[in-house]
Amino acid sequence: MTNSSDGFLNPQSIAVYGASERASSPGTHIFRNLTSQGYGGKVIAINPKYDSLGGQSCVPSQEAAGTGADLAIIAIPPKAVPGALRDCASMGTSAAIVITAGFVEGNGPAGKQRLLNTAKAGNIQIMGPNCLGLVRPHLRLNATFQPALPPKGGLALISQSGAICSSMADMAEQDGLGFSLMMSLGNSFELGLGDAIVMAADDARTKVILVYVEGVRNGPKFRSALRAAYKIKPVIVLKAGRHAEGAAAAATHTGALVGSDAVFSAVLREAGAVQVATLGELLDVARFMSSHQRSCGGRLAIVTNGGGVGVLTADRLSDRSLPIAPLPQDVCDSLEGQLSPNWSRRNPLDIVGDATASDFKAALDACLQSDEFDAALALLSPQSMTAPDRVADAVLEAHHRYDKPVLSCFLGGHSVSSSRTKLRRHGIPDFNRPEEAVRAFAAAVKAGERSARVDDAPKLKGTKRTTLTKAVRSLGTLTPGMLSDIASRRLLSVAGIPCPVPELAATDDAAVAIFEKLRSPVVLKVVSPEISHKSEVNGVRLNLQSQPEVAAAFHDICDTAKRIRPDASILGVSVEPMVQPDDAREVLIGVTRDPAFGPVITFGAGGTLVELLGDVATGMLPLSRNAAVELIGRTRVARLLGPFRNTAPVDTGALVDVLMHVSDLCLAMPMLEEMDINPLIVAPSGLCAVDVRIRLGSNDPALRLTGQH
Amino acid sequence: MTNSSDGFLNPQSIAVYGASERASSPGTHIFRNLTSQGYGGKVIAINPKYDSLGGQSCVPSQEAAGTGADLAIIAIPPKAVPGALRDCASMGTSAAIVITAGFVEGNGPAGKQRLLNTAKAGNIQIMGPNCLGLVRPHLRLNATFQPALPPKGGLALISQSGAICSSMADMAEQDGLGFSLMMSLGNSFELGLGDAIVMAADDARTKVILVYVEGVRNGPKFRSALRAAYKIKPVIVLKAGRHAEGAAAAATHTGALVGSDAVFSAVLREAGAVQVATLGELLDVARFMSSHQRSCGGRLAIVTNGGGVGVLTADRLSDRSLPIAPLPQDVCDSLEGQLSPNWSRRNPLDIVGDATASDFKAALDACLQSDEFDAALALLSPQSMTAPDRVADAVLEAHHRYDKPVLSCFLGGHSVSSSRTKLRRHGIPDFNRPEEAVRAFAAAVKAGERSARVDDAPKLKGTKRTTLTKAVRSLGTLTPGMLSDIASRRLLSVAGIPCPVPELAATDDAAVAIFEKLRSPVVLKVVSPEISHKSEVNGVRLNLQSQPEVAAAFHDICDTAKRIRPDASILGVSVEPMVQPDDAREVLIGVTRDPAFGPVITFGAGGTLVELLGDVATGMLPLSRNAAVELIGRTRVARLLGPFRNTAPVDTGALVDVLMHVSDLCLAMPMLEEMDINPLIVAPSGLCAVDVRIRLGSNDPALRLTGQH
Repeated sequence: MTNSSDGFLNPQSIAVYGASERASSPGTHIFRNLTSQGYGGKVIAINPKYDSLGGQSCVPSQEAAGTGADLAIIAIPPKAVPGALRDCASMGTSAAIVITAGFVEGNGPAGKQRLLNTAKAGNIQIMGPNCLGLVRPHLRLNATFQPALPPKGGLALISQSGAICSSMADMAEQDGLGFSLMMSLGNSFELGLGDAIVMAADDARTKVILVYVEGVRNGPKFRSALRAAYKIKPVIVLKAGRHAEGAAAAATHTGALVGSDAVFSAVLREAGAVQVATLGELLDVARFMSSHQRSCGGRLAIVTNGGGVGVLTADRLSDRSLPIAPLPQDVCDSLEGQLSPNWSRRNPLDIVGDATASDFKAALDACLQSDEFDAALALLSPQSMTAPDRVADAVLEAHHRYDKPVLSCFLGGHSVSSSRTKLRRHGIPDFNRPEEAVRAFAAAVKAGERSARVDDAPKLKGTKRTTLTKAVRSLGTLTPGMLSDIASRRLLSVAGIPCPVPELAATDDAAVAIFEKLRSPVVLKVVSPEISHKSEVNGVRLNLQSQPEVAAAFHDICDTAKRIRPDASILGVSVEPMVQPDDAREVLIGVTRDPAFGPVITFGAGGTLVELLGDVATGMLPLSRNAAVELIGRTRVARLLGPFRNTAPVDTGALVDVLMHVSDLCLAMPMLEEMDINPLIVAPSGLCAVDVRIRLGSNDPALRLTGQH
Repeated sequence: MTNSSDGFLNPQSIAVYGASERASSPGTHIFRNLTSQGYGGKVIAINPKYDSLGGQSCVPSQEAAGTGADLAIIAIPPKAVPGALRDCASMGTSAAIVITAGFVEGNGPAGKQRLLNTAKAGNIQIMGPNCLGLVRPHLRLNATFQPALPPKGGLALISQSGAICSSMADMAEQDGLGFSLMMSLGNSFELGLGDAIVMAADDARTKVILVYVEGVRNGPKFRSALRAAYKIKPVIVLKAGRHAEGAAAAATHTGALVGSDAVFSAVLREAGAVQVATLGELLDVARFMSSHQRSCGGRLAIVTNGGGVGVLTADRLSDRSLPIAPLPQDVCDSLEGQLSPNWSRRNPLDIVGDATASDFKAALDACLQSDEFDAALALLSPQSMTAPDRVADAVLEAHHRYDKPVLSCFLGGHSVSSSRTKLRRHGIPDFNRPEEAVRAFAAAVKAGERSARVDDAPKLKGTKRTTLTKAVRSLGTLTPGMLSDIASRRLLSVAGIPCPVPELAATDDAAVAIFEKLRSPVVLKVVSPEISHKSEVNGVRLNLQSQPEVAAAFHDICDTAKRIRPDASILGVSVEPMVQPDDAREVLIGVTRDPAFGPVITFGAGGTLVELLGDVATGMLPLSRNAAVELIGRTRVARLLGPFRNTAPVDTGALVDVLMHVSDLCLAMPMLEEMDINPLIVAPSGLCAVDVRIRLGSNDPALRLTGQH
């Protein structure tokens, strides 16, 4: 007996519940795949209806066989599954793949709860139900009912769709994909994406993890699994259903701005994983990474006999924010005389239509030898003088000679198909279209950059936590719901975020005294529990600059309010500094809580038009300082923060500080459910939160920050 | 003898200058292609070095042969080409393809000018030089040096790259592409993109025109050719070098905002052509349109045995702004009982992993019979029970039975390759990846919508032109360069665009009188030819609301200016209404002149941050009313024009009027080179141009609006 991870990934023996002879039964195919494709371990057929199957004995149970396998594969009707699990438990089998579909909610005979309870009682980890199973090509272990056993290699595919697995297994050989592992998770009653990612991260044969996601059930586990994987190997994720879910209803602007898809992307970004947009992109990245699994710089040399396709390829590099690396002078000089006199002498290297295989070879050699290029793409268009097979040989030679990726794209049909087969067979990442080569290369480069850039999860240091917690307590008892304006402002202030807190003045003298203390123009607002819309009683005066103005405004406000609302008790006026610095920009900082992944921070353009402009970026909390800088950089409003025209730049460091203070506040205060600071005025002379709304949730520890685990 | 278009596209006889036996000579391959691939016309070999070639006589010239061919193909050294053209002229050949490369500037023996002069003198239209030639598959006419003759069909490919032609010709058979025409234009000394598009538009065998562009030499001809084509057949355009050209230096904001790429896209949009982003997209659209050339609605039924790939495909429909058409209840009901009990009962139709060919057939039939679907995609993942060949038969049956496009994507390798070959051979648009099917479908749908939406080029009606021209003349002599502020405002006013024109007041009484006349708060500004920066002398007063305020401001402004700038002659103050309506939005309208395509209009978010926000859309002038509405709709600021929160909507009709007035003004005033209206204040109560800058160019008729041709 082994631990369950080894039970799944490296089983020495496998029991197949439901092994059969009927063509329509999955157990038939699974048993046949396990016994006929070269798997070296022991396979036990379990089915009370047969004495023997395929020339070996068949038993009614593991108990009857007297041996316990490392892994059980269960393909029998739902009602019979708990019995099979009890048989497993009695023989020490701790890993089970439940192929069977059709479980229902509850604890009935075919119930989900009964299945889970039985597994738990027997200390068995189950994968599925309703899944395709798993494949380990280097063990020649095909524990699925699909016939195709893909070639072995470094890719692990973890998929919530069986069809994605079977399609990729089927195309693997032709497409040059090599796998260490394929897992189809099915309904994931227990073993989920997070568990599977951890298994793949720990698996020595896996170099790159590909994940197909439809929905994440256990957000914190998924997040920590990604974080566990990122330093060891790249993770590439394709998410389906991106348009299916709308933004959740929420009390703040930010809530309406942040959809679950933005949060998912933020989770991946934080963990250094790379998100791809389409199945094709996933397959292309997989093909590139089948042959090249280390991180790679982004300077690609494009060697082509077609000028137009070269330009198109360069366009795509720009689209993906990769440089069109210039051709170094020494490389250019070394090629002079070796190529057709009309060659381009820059990157893309257009070696013109009549280029021979030795022209391709010379150009690839010169580029790959140079420290100024990280990789090369051989881009061929079949023309009358072109010998695709010999060019393919030149590409293979370059691939073997240099420790840099060499990609190929032979843009044709009939005349290039044998060359392309040869290239793929020999491990060259070969692509149908130049843009597919570029997107695969770009994703691999990004994967390398991402993992290098990920920071450790930030923690709130003891003293800061103590200070913050004390300060929050000093605000008194906080109950769930919207905080009052003054309480919200006090909370920001104690968190270190500049935010004018109005002071109450019951008399004109008190108002003047506050004005004198502030040494700034002030705003006066009527204060009355009965008056919520201050403008109805003309209850606001802006930009008062002298003692007489303040005193006059005090009386004017109170008198008008009393006249218009004789029912209201007028407590006086609030006095706060007038915030109107030169060259001010308005930004928004928001906090929301994603049901799956926990607290999320949003930064973007502020003001009243935020929903309409939608210029926001989303990140996970807690935030590292680097992540804060990057968060700002992902918005358009970031461009307004530097100097432009006659406007001075703002203090970006101070803005990053505010984001960090928000992050710390959320760590110290798990009941903070939603927050909108909008606008935060950012100016060359400093910054200031002008308006803030905070909603508190319950203080239930279950709602605590996942980042703290 | 025929006209030159027929000479190129339907020649009865062809003379090959440079026909040869040497393997490295293009003439050898061209002569062989013309005589061995089934072309039915007469082919004359011309080369003084041979008496016979390939079993037929070879002559030194057409004159020596005594016959003039419809088309000459010239593949001889540059210096000899003019002689060949004179030979053509003497025998009445009016169309010549110059394959030869290496012409130099000037009128020397191998000079471009001598070539053009000789062709002109002989009344010969030349294609090339330095081109691949042309292909007419239904005539089995391969007038290139490439061996591949692609299958015949409805696609015309017009390309500025020979490699694109040879790649597409090579892949055509495997990829299911059928061509009516391929033209590689080479250096386009004379016959350019516009000419080629007109030829293809006139060609009855061409149903769809594909264009690969690197740069347009004759903008007006290109534009009018597109306009000539759009009502007859779709035009799909791929432009390379999108990132190569920066925005031109310009005197106004708009100039810096509008790059040549945006203008190119605006040209295509105006003409109803569809721009694709990548070679792959061009090829995919070509494949779809090879089988389906009419316009098509956008409601796609997705029938699949893989839930995950179905969701991914639906995602891509959303990405491309296509609906995920709901499954009608009657279609759903009709399928009940025919499919596996777990089928999805919505679109995408997930008919689950064990779906048989008859399940696919039933689902495709039901969807294609329904009026609620315009097309269907059969999306297959090979699973253990899947029979791809039989599913392919079901797809072919559906294709034959219904007059709607049926697309296929069989996502696998080995187990689906024979099915895919069969599908492509029988004219099914079959794709490697689901997203490729979607983008091809989406581009075809867009092409149909585009051509339905294009308006006739708007013209300036006689009376409006007269009024405008008179009004412009009334402003006095306009010289090239920046117009003064007052002249710019007057020009807008006469064009019908609300724009306060300041009035000069030389005395306090005059200022007060203007204030009284305006019945609005006013702005006073110092007027002095010597003072350009009014703020230096504190020379501006905003929002003056009473006679005493205006009078006091008059004196204050004049006195201060005289004190600070005793050298300056103070003419008085300008008085204009203060524009500050409630709920105001700021937009920008700009006009620039593209060197290739003429005047261009830009609309977007206004204010001081326009370059940083870059929220602009670009359209060609003159503008139709529909195009004006669409122009506004392409910006983010459009969302601010409707009602939001407590803000009332603006009068969008009035905004469209302003765009039309700008368009009319440009038509009436060809010397208007650049204009910035920024901001144009748009509010529920009306709109007003607050600031405007206009630059005039020369009145040279060569700079007149291309739209007027």
